[in-house]
Amino acid sequence: MDTMEILNAVKEGRMTPEQAELKLRTQPYEDLGFVKIDHHRALRQGMQEVIYGASKTPEQILGICQAMDHKGDNNILITRMKPEAAELLQQHMDLFYDPLSRVGIVNRSFKDTGDGVIAVVSGGTSDQPVCEEAALTAEVFGNRVERIYDVGVAGLHRLLSRLDDVMSANVIIAVAGMEGALVSVVGGLVSAPVVAVPTSVGYGANFGGVSALLNMLNSCASGVGVVNIDNGFGAAVLASRINHMGGHKKA
Amino acid sequence: MDTMEILNAVKEGRMTPEQAELKLRTQPYEDLGFVKIDHHRALRQGMQEVIYGASKTPEQILGICQAMDHKGDNNILITRMKPEAAELLQQHMDLFYDPLSRVGIVNRSFKDTGDGVIAVVSGGTSDQPVCEEAALTAEVFGNRVERIYDVGVAGLHRLLSRLDDVMSANVIIAVAGMEGALVSVVGGLVSAPVVAVPTSVGYGANFGGVSALLNMLNSCASGVGVVNIDNGFGAAVLASRINHMGGHKKA
Amino acid sequence: MDTMEILNAVKEGRMTPEQAELKLRTQPYEDLGFVKIDHHRALRQGMQEVIYGASKTPEQILGICQAMDHKGDNNILITRMKPEAAELLQQHMDLFYDPLSRVGIVNRSFKDTGDGVIAVVSGGTSDQPVCEEAALTAEVFGNRVERIYDVGVAGLHRLLSRLDDVMSANVIIAVAGMEGALVSVVGGLVSAPVVAVPTSVGYGANFGGVSALLNMLNSCASGVGVVNIDNGFGAAVLASRINHMGGHKKA
Amino acid sequence: MDTMEILNAVKEGRMTPEQAELKLRTQPYEDLGFVKIDHHRALRQGMQEVIYGASKTPEQILGICQAMDHKGDNNILITRMKPEAAELLQQHMDLFYDPLSRVGIVNRSFKDTGDGVIAVVSGGTSDQPVCEEAALTAEVFGNRVERIYDVGVAGLHRLLSRLDDVMSANVIIAVAGMEGALVSVVGGLVSAPVVAVPTSVGYGANFGGVSALLNMLNSCASGVGVVNIDNGFGAAVLASRINHMGGHKKA
Amino acid sequence: MDTMEILNAVKEGRMTPEQAELKLRTQPYEDLGFVKIDHHRALRQGMQEVIYGASKTPEQILGICQAMDHKGDNNILITRMKPEAAELLQQHMDLFYDPLSRVGIVNRSFKDTGDGVIAVVSGGTSDQPVCEEAALTAEVFGNRVERIYDVGVAGLHRLLSRLDDVMSANVIIAVAGMEGALVSVVGGLVSAPVVAVPTSVGYGANFGGVSALLNMLNSCASGVGVVNIDNGFGAAVLASRINHMGGHKKA
Amino acid sequence: MDTMEILNAVKEGRMTPEQAELKLRTQPYEDLGFVKIDHHRALRQGMQEVIYGASKTPEQILGICQAMDHKGDNNILITRMKPEAAELLQQHMDLFYDPLSRVGIVNRSFKDTGDGVIAVVSGGTSDQPVCEEAALTAEVFGNRVERIYDVGVAGLHRLLSRLDDVMSANVIIAVAGMEGALVSVVGGLVSAPVVAVPTSVGYGANFGGVSALLNMLNSCASGVGVVNIDNGFGAAVLASRINHMGGHKKA
Amino acid sequence: MDTMEILNAVKEGRMTPEQAELKLRTQPYEDLGFVKIDHHRALRQGMQEVIYGASKTPEQILGICQAMDHKGDNNILITRMKPEAAELLQQHMDLFYDPLSRVGIVNRSFKDTGDGVIAVVSGGTSDQPVCEEAALTAEVFGNRVERIYDVGVAGLHRLLSRLDDVMSANVIIAVAGMEGALVSVVGGLVSAPVVAVPTSVGYGANFGGVSALLNMLNSCASGVGVVNIDNGFGAAVLASRINHMGGHKKA
Amino acid sequence: MDTMEILNAVKEGRMTPEQAELKLRTQPYEDLGFVKIDHHRALRQGMQEVIYGASKTPEQILGICQAMDHKGDNNILITRMKPEAAELLQQHMDLFYDPLSRVGIVNRSFKDTGDGVIAVVSGGTSDQPVCEEAALTAEVFGNRVERIYDVGVAGLHRLLSRLDDVMSANVIIAVAGMEGALVSVVGGLVSAPVVAVPTSVGYGANFGGVSALLNMLNSCASGVGVVNIDNGFGAAVLASRINHMGGHKKA
Repeated sequence: MDTMEILNAVKEGRMTPEQAELKLRTQPYEDLGFVKIDHHRALRQGMQEVIYGASKTPEQILGICQAMDHKGDNNILITRMKPEAAELLQQHMDLFYDPLSRVGIVNRSFKDTGDGVIAVVSGGTSDQPVCEEAALTAEVFGNRVERIYDVGVAGLHRLLSRLDDVMSANVIIAVAGMEGALVSVVGGLVSAPVVAVPTSVGYGANFGGVSALLNMLNSCASGVGVVNIDNGFGAAVLASRINHMGGHKKA
Repeated sequence: MDTMEILNAVKEGRMTPEQAELKLRTQPYEDLGFVKIDHHRALRQGMQEVIYGASKTPEQILGICQAMDHKGDNNILITRMKPEAAELLQQHMDLFYDPLSRVGIVNRSFKDTGDGVIAVVSGGTSDQPVCEEAALTAEVFGNRVERIYDVGVAGLHRLLSRLDDVMSANVIIAVAGMEGALVSVVGGLVSAPVVAVPTSVGYGANFGGVSALLNMLNSCASGVGVVNIDNGFGAAVLASRINHMGGHKKA
Repeated sequence: MDTMEILNAVKEGRMTPEQAELKLRTQPYEDLGFVKIDHHRALRQGMQEVIYGASKTPEQILGICQAMDHKGDNNILITRMKPEAAELLQQHMDLFYDPLSRVGIVNRSFKDTGDGVIAVVSGGTSDQPVCEEAALTAEVFGNRVERIYDVGVAGLHRLLSRLDDVMSANVIIAVAGMEGALVSVVGGLVSAPVVAVPTSVGYGANFGGVSALLNMLNSCASGVGVVNIDNGFGAAVLASRINHMGGHKKA
Repeated sequence: MDTMEILNAVKEGRMTPEQAELKLRTQPYEDLGFVKIDHHRALRQGMQEVIYGASKTPEQILGICQAMDHKGDNNILITRMKPEAAELLQQHMDLFYDPLSRVGIVNRSFKDTGDGVIAVVSGGTSDQPVCEEAALTAEVFGNRVERIYDVGVAGLHRLLSRLDDVMSANVIIAVAGMEGALVSVVGGLVSAPVVAVPTSVGYGANFGGVSALLNMLNSCASGVGVVNIDNGFGAAVLASRINHMGGHKKA
Repeated sequence: MDTMEILNAVKEGRMTPEQAELKLRTQPYEDLGFVKIDHHRALRQGMQEVIYGASKTPEQILGICQAMDHKGDNNILITRMKPEAAELLQQHMDLFYDPLSRVGIVNRSFKDTGDGVIAVVSGGTSDQPVCEEAALTAEVFGNRVERIYDVGVAGLHRLLSRLDDVMSANVIIAVAGMEGALVSVVGGLVSAPVVAVPTSVGYGANFGGVSALLNMLNSCASGVGVVNIDNGFGAAVLASRINHMGGHKKA
Repeated sequence: MDTMEILNAVKEGRMTPEQAELKLRTQPYEDLGFVKIDHHRALRQGMQEVIYGASKTPEQILGICQAMDHKGDNNILITRMKPEAAELLQQHMDLFYDPLSRVGIVNRSFKDTGDGVIAVVSGGTSDQPVCEEAALTAEVFGNRVERIYDVGVAGLHRLLSRLDDVMSANVIIAVAGMEGALVSVVGGLVSAPVVAVPTSVGYGANFGGVSALLNMLNSCASGVGVVNIDNGFGAAVLASRINHMGGHKKA
Repeated sequence: MDTMEILNAVKEGRMTPEQAELKLRTQPYEDLGFVKIDHHRALRQGMQEVIYGASKTPEQILGICQAMDHKGDNNILITRMKPEAAELLQQHMDLFYDPLSRVGIVNRSFKDTGDGVIAVVSGGTSDQPVCEEAALTAEVFGNRVERIYDVGVAGLHRLLSRLDDVMSANVIIAVAGMEGALVSVVGGLVSAPVVAVPTSVGYGANFGGVSALLNMLNSCASGVGVVNIDNGFGAAVLASRINHMGGHKKA
Repeated sequence: MDTMEILNAVKEGRMTPEQAELKLRTQPYEDLGFVKIDHHRALRQGMQEVIYGASKTPEQILGICQAMDHKGDNNILITRMKPEAAELLQQHMDLFYDPLSRVGIVNRSFKDTGDGVIAVVSGGTSDQPVCEEAALTAEVFGNRVERIYDVGVAGLHRLLSRLDDVMSANVIIAVAGMEGALVSVVGGLVSAPVVAVPTSVGYGANFGGVSALLNMLNSCASGVGVVNIDNGFGAAVLASRINHMGGHKKA
């Protein structure tokens, strides 16, 4: 029941001003469009509540997922999900689980609603957990993903041999730990937006990802936006928003 | 002359293999499409070389601008341009200069080629130099810009009163110094991508922008990409790329 | 025996100057009122010695509590108490124990002596251990506490829906990890003093709470005092002092 | 015109639902009480808009002050005001100016509305600019201030000799640069809330105030809230809020 | 098949221009000499792919090593190899394993191809794991290594007693944790290049190796290049390159 | 055999110049007095080699101690000794072991050779491991030690009640974690040299002892020298050197 | 009038208990010996109030010095004194001024009251301002000073050539900027206490003295106490206290 | 006169043991070869004392240069030389001065004594001062230098177009500010040793060169040694040592 309906009810005497005032007070943001935002977002991006598994017990995660399942939800995303939680869920539900990235997806069902391809590029196998968190999240949000995981700048020829894939992507997620340089090189090659994810992989003066983070922020290539260290999920959300701007697929 | 032309010339005997080999060697990246990338980028984004004024003398800037002017360039962008350089250029060229952001534009001529509006939001007047660097840069790159400069989170009602403008933007550039919280609040309200720019405005434990930078990287709102401290230019480039993804206006 | 009594004893010849001098020397601070301070504080704030459980064995904690119990103490507070200590105490005493915040209270008995309500607000479930340390401590010190744990700024409507509770509080304890922005938003809405507690919850560029700490120190909202990272106890002590300033309940 | 009046006007046909809906939309926060908050705050704390002088020209400051003066405002506070701005204002208005703290007050007029005394304590003359910013701000907001500026912990006898003044204060603002220890010592002596202000005074491993800041956050004394480095103004606002909680003087 | 061969094939009609263009496209870096670089490097330095053991399972390491073994490779180097991986490999292959430095070498076979001796110097036994990673790596790459592990600057006489060995080395790898001073002292004594390796050994204000790192970067001795904290492997690669510059042994 | 003896042997023909030159070369520092330094130091300070237990196996420690025992050494000091090493040694030798500080002493035998008393002061029980490392080390080196472990600055009366002991000490070792303020207060009260030891005890913005370290370096009290975080051993060595300067007891 | 006199006056009826109580209250620390401490310190160390010139006007400094001069003080020490203050004082008083270290001394008059020599050692001319602040301060406090300013560790032979002077000193002040290594080397050579002063001299990763500070705190040589960056004065006070412990010269 | 000569003189009675002992004592390091080291180094590398101009007056620099000139020295190098010093010297001597890098060379005279070419590569004009300090220093030390200043990684084609020059260099000095990525890319392309110089050029999260420094230390390319921020001189010294290892040109 929105503001206009309430006002009409008042006008027509079906509701007293006191009742109307209470209605407006208890749902104060409804007339501000807040709830609509949330609905709109879900509709447009296939984005529903995401479960951050790190601080929840297996039982809690199961409970939330079953409730969502009963509503008929697909693609229920659980990030940072511990193996023991995955074991429990697999006994009760249709769960996809990637132990490397600790991403779980209940009732997985892919549908491409994006404008183009999101390329996830990185330079080494050790960044793969973060890469997969980004890739799987992007897929859940309706994006086609191209994984390009072996293009470190210290072996430039490998990157150049995958140049076509990199250059034809609509959005690029560049994941790098020690090798933060990847972002500058890729950012200089493409005209697509680049979402940069520093990772905590490395040792010594890597300082848990600070080295890569600073490097990415200082990248001489323009068109780069940086997310938090190891935040593959956040990178995928941003990339997905960008990849749905054209609205090509929705038509 | 591209690779196919060279190869055909060899085939037809108009060129010896030695000449061809030299040709390929001296312009090795031409056949890799590098130059084409640059041309393509310029065509698509209206983006030409940008002059970083901070490390150049007024005479150097004048020289570069005159050369570009002779080629018929419009919207020649100079960032971090000192007032004395502006004074010199104004005697010889058609220069727009904003002393606050130190942005200069030669042969300014606006043409909207973007998909929608880029909103530049900030919480206080002291962030305005960075805001204007972002806003003017975005305009040069063919984007319509909405300036919303008085929406600090400590006075939430001001932000809510501009909610329509914020929510209807296609991309948002959120600029904040001490008040890095703006990004989380705005990021939670909108479904558009948010480019966050921390500024060095503030004092004490602000540490030259580190406080705002960390806050933005840790924002609980998803869909946020962060650029370097005070980097209004970089934010605008990223926002412009995103705002040209749909290709709506180009048709 | 205080200074006046000693001096009168000297005057009346019941004590030699030498004896008096020794008396004053060996208890030098008694005549400075130090001990009185402690008594006064305990009387006024219902505050007795607090046991920091982190560096004590279960047996040590039990011993201290039994000694205090024999003196007739209520509301004996133990912070950072490990589960094994709780198990031991529960076999011998009347212990309330909250495993989340690791707060233990022996002979719990609530009495509201404060001027108004202390609201503990936070944006997510992961900050709850620190929130509960603050809330339970505040209750032990005689304050009524309102828990408002789901008002993160990225979902502004949730905060606005609890606005009445937040605005009617006498003092606010704002607990936030990654989402340090909560302090600026709340501080801008209320006229009550705000005690801000950064938490170490988060990852990456959160740096164990530094991100939230800096954000709170730089808050553009006035009227905010910050305590150490994860220091729910300290926040409650400060809030309790403020909530007892009016002396309304004591009359 | 509030929500109830609008609803009654709709009921009585004096306003169409469409007009009412527009009214509610364009002033969406009025029915949420936001504007009332601001009024309430001003009435209760004698707090009006404060002018941050650091980023304004003398002419801008003059303009704002004259506008406020015309509305009949007293105690117009300007912080971080440069001497040249003070010179200009003194030619046109009734300005009090303290060159040390760079605080200016137009139409200064003190009225004690607080519950008790705010003591501003510090250990050395070099912290005096921050101390005076705090003290003058507190006075503008209606608090009686006791200045205790020579009580560094390295000369403990000086602090002990002022013990009565420190202990009888209702709130304490402790200002310290290198000598952050003052907060722990004072916090251990009093039962009043302590607002701690680290200053950037010092050299070497002081790191622009970080040393004092960390020390205060780690203070073993409870009941301490910390503000930003050099933020005398913010400390005074918090102290003033606390000193007006009892409402004793307002009756 | 290199560029010239392709061009000749086109000229002679053995290949169509289209086939040639595809060939050039799919192996674009071949004509740039990239692959040749890698071959050249391997030939010249005896350097083949190195296996970073930290992020691989024992089974993965075994698989890679067996594949390399089948190609006839010697001196297969595995760094940061966990004991359980060593156990597995030892059952199937000819593995040398040093549990201290966690370096493993399959089919170890030393051949001195360097110009002179690489001296690895350090001041204490606790740096030995990093020292041995450097020493064993250098040996794998064909360098004769002199281990000088007991020459801390706080006992200068020990260093002076080994002066001949230090001064006659062709390259020096100086490894130091807390005792970063070693680099300055050694760098002042010798005319050979010094590769400095800070280690994370120590405690307190050592900050995981930052203390030694900064000290080495600020060394007043010239001719010093620093590698990452604990990066014995990287130091050995650089030292080996330097020790092969003269080409004396290769003749 | 020192330089003069060698030279006389040459003069008298008992040694050839070649033999002498070798002698001087192989023990180059003997004629520089290096060895004498070490002997002299041992004689004067009762200081022999100290065993850093953290990086040694129980068997290694036992071996070293037995060798020293056979030479007739007393007071063999082992720092950071793990309990399992203590267990082994206790089966074979006369070992004193303090599990709190992890200090072990073989053939303990106290002899007071210092000028006066070294007072070890601290503010809380949690700093006790570092305190005891300092106290036991000082005793091994021949100093009488007064332990004053309950004098935190937040309870100033406790410190004042122990003032006589603090002020009569010849050297003071002040140990403090969060409560770094202790150093400033003590340093202001006494005229004796103060050796300050920051500890890593605490949490949050304590940053593993950095808070206390910075505070001590910035202490407004003069006459304070700081050692590394948690370095009770180093503090004791410095304090012992100072306490043996007068040479009073040695006569 | 001390406690005993007051008590006797009470006993003899010359003072009422009330008068005595007031007396004790208003000068509470007199009977605690605080004032005596200050006197004692002055007598023993020739140490009077030191003027920190950095935050005082030339006129203020002149006023303080004239007041002290009238009391007959010698060796009035002014640190961090600007040239313009020196100019003013030289017109009115007997001022020694060293422009390099900015140390001023009024009525300079040297008297050796120390046990031995304090050696000030450093590695380069750029540390000389801090060295001289230390050396001149030490002289003012009655110590004989040996300046050894050219003994950087990168040229070890220079240090060894001055070994006798270094080793015969009673206390050593080691001043070092980039070359923090000096402390470890010197600390390993001598048995005297070493006071280490990091300086802010240098650039880049020197970070204003942090590099040298960390290096000194981590020195592997025992017997070293560190003071704040650039704090030559503080080092001299500590060294002077140590150099007066034996009391040899005072007899 | 070396040790053998002294010993022979003693044997033959031409010198008493006492004279010999004094001789050995006063020049203790002569028999250790220290002086010889210095001579040897100068002879071998054409390296004489370098004047650090930053902390010297123009007159001091002139004096030193004239003294060296009288000894017949060529290629007297002055780094960080202010323009006013250059002006003075140019009036009296044959000075080459580069105002950009502030390098001065008296009696410049180039002679190529190196094994090959040192390439100085960088990505932008703003790093040029550091580049030139490195290049000019390398030339003074007898190396042929190839300047490659426009090869930033964000424009990879520019680097690839200079690939031959980069790959044919014997040693590479890679200079980079924000664009620290250059080191990884270059290090991956070449087999020559790379000396990496971070510069302080940039703004924001560049933190005065820390961003580039960390990036270089974490480079995934092996064979890289890093020097201090902005330390072009130190890089050149290290590169020159490496470039003289083969000894090819000296024959």
